[in-house]
Amino acid sequence: MDQIAYVNGSFVPLSEAKVSILDRGFLFADGIYEVAAVLDGKLIDNASHLARLERSVGEISLALPETTERIQEIQKELIARNKIVNGMVYLEVTRGADTGRDFAFPKAVKPTLIMFTSVKDIVNAASAKTGIGVITVPDLRWERRDIKSVALLAQVLAKQAAAEAGAGEAWMIEDGKVTEGGSSSAFILTQDDVLVTRQNSSAILPGCTRKAVVALAEERQLRVEERPFTVEEALAAKEAFITSATVFVQAVVSIDGKQVANGKPGPMTNRLREIYVDFARATAV
Amino acid sequence: MDQIAYVNGSFVPLSEAKVSILDRGFLFADGIYEVAAVLDGKLIDNASHLARLERSVGEISLALPETTERIQEIQKELIARNKIVNGMVYLEVTRGADTGRDFAFPKAVKPTLIMFTSVKDIVNAASAKTGIGVITVPDLRWERRDIKSVALLAQVLAKQAAAEAGAGEAWMIEDGKVTEGGSSSAFILTQDDVLVTRQNSSAILPGCTRKAVVALAEERQLRVEERPFTVEEALAAKEAFITSATVFVQAVVSIDGKQVANGKPGPMTNRLREIYVDFARATAV
Repeated sequence: MDQIAYVNGSFVPLSEAKVSILDRGFLFADGIYEVAAVLDGKLIDNASHLARLERSVGEISLALPETTERIQEIQKELIARNKIVNGMVYLEVTRGADTGRDFAFPKAVKPTLIMFTSVKDIVNAASAKTGIGVITVPDLRWERRDIKSVALLAQVLAKQAAAEAGAGEAWMIEDGKVTEGGSSSAFILTQDDVLVTRQNSSAILPGCTRKAVVALAEERQLRVEERPFTVEEALAAKEAFITSATVFVQAVVSIDGKQVANGKPGPMTNRLREIYVDFARATAV
Repeated sequence: MDQIAYVNGSFVPLSEAKVSILDRGFLFADGIYEVAAVLDGKLIDNASHLARLERSVGEISLALPETTERIQEIQKELIARNKIVNGMVYLEVTRGADTGRDFAFPKAVKPTLIMFTSVKDIVNAASAKTGIGVITVPDLRWERRDIKSVALLAQVLAKQAAAEAGAGEAWMIEDGKVTEGGSSSAFILTQDDVLVTRQNSSAILPGCTRKAVVALAEERQLRVEERPFTVEEALAAKEAFITSATVFVQAVVSIDGKQVANGKPGPMTNRLREIYVDFARATAV
């Protein structure tokens, strides 16, 4: 049966969920998105996603058409209408549809807000047990990767290259260092048991799951260093993993076909995954 | 009266011209566009635009849903239906709408093709007589600017900054040199009467009007150097101008508020504009 989507105030069947061809999301990638996971019918770490949404729209001077409180209500209504137990809610805000196409911001045009859901059993995903391989690609993206915009063509090409190589993610490389994955943050655990992930800056997206995992690790007295790392460091590490809203914590067991450690998810990765899932369930709304 | 747009095989009123919220143009900026000018009801330099369209889609492994011959037929039908005398036809091709959202290319999904028109008297535009001011902004774009993708957020922000400053265009600066305008190519005429414009590479879009103007200038024995130039060089130049499909050749009379030469469109700019308009009319289809 057709699932229900949300488009500018209305709940409609996904097959009828449409936007104008003049929508600036479609013409200019002039929009921001967020994806929040759903576990047991509840939103995971959603306050963090909504805070990032507010930050991103602010960086491009785009006003949200609804309060974040109302946005969360709509997310929850969509979860209920689609009876989502485990999955995710995607939301996108764009600068709306003007009467024509002009690069500069239109006046008096209401932003577009759309949402849809999908089903995914993140906790029991097969790849959580096996880990994934990643490939490396040059980071071709623009200089404001801290803005979660829908201008994702570089990420599409990176993740398509990964898919063609049979890998689960692409790590993007700039100046010899890993920036992040196509849709995830990158971590390693060094031989000295230091968790390393790149510091937030305009070079990467400030990952919500990344932030939570760093905080959870530090609460448990794990040493965390926020700095860039190389592929060579990752290949020499004890463990490597990625984080994102839709995989949580996922082991990386090979990079460009070369095995990381023994090629199996490491104990710290598995432990952090459990800790994150506990955190997620405990704080779900 | 509502104009007519084209959406995936149908001619529909613009107010009903819509795409799915799952369209990859809307979710990922996974699409390519072109804008061709219309003079006296005919398409200007369209073969060049369609050749660039084919190149761009090829660079992101996207198959056109129609032949370029058929695309031109649709462009012409839209011009006729909307009775466009002077204006433009916008066209966009995206990787279509899958049943969900996954970065990697979907299988067996038909690309989306949309078109719409707008009215603009390019030849008699007021700014052709007065010239425009430009501002400079850092070039924040990705590394494949030779691909005419709809991932245009950096250009939107650049051109919005120009609009807020009362300028007509933003010149983007990288490593101390002008790359190009937010939606145009940048030229200067040096004190030695050399026409300078940046050479094609992945740093800029290969402008169709730029290409035609360079060829027309060379045919007339004007010296052309294709190389990057600085803002200082532009401010010391005899003339400066931009080219694009929707302005043709347009004088730049100030940069960041500083006057270029005497602050009026120069004679070579005016001459090249006339030459381009003659070329456009002579080759229109």
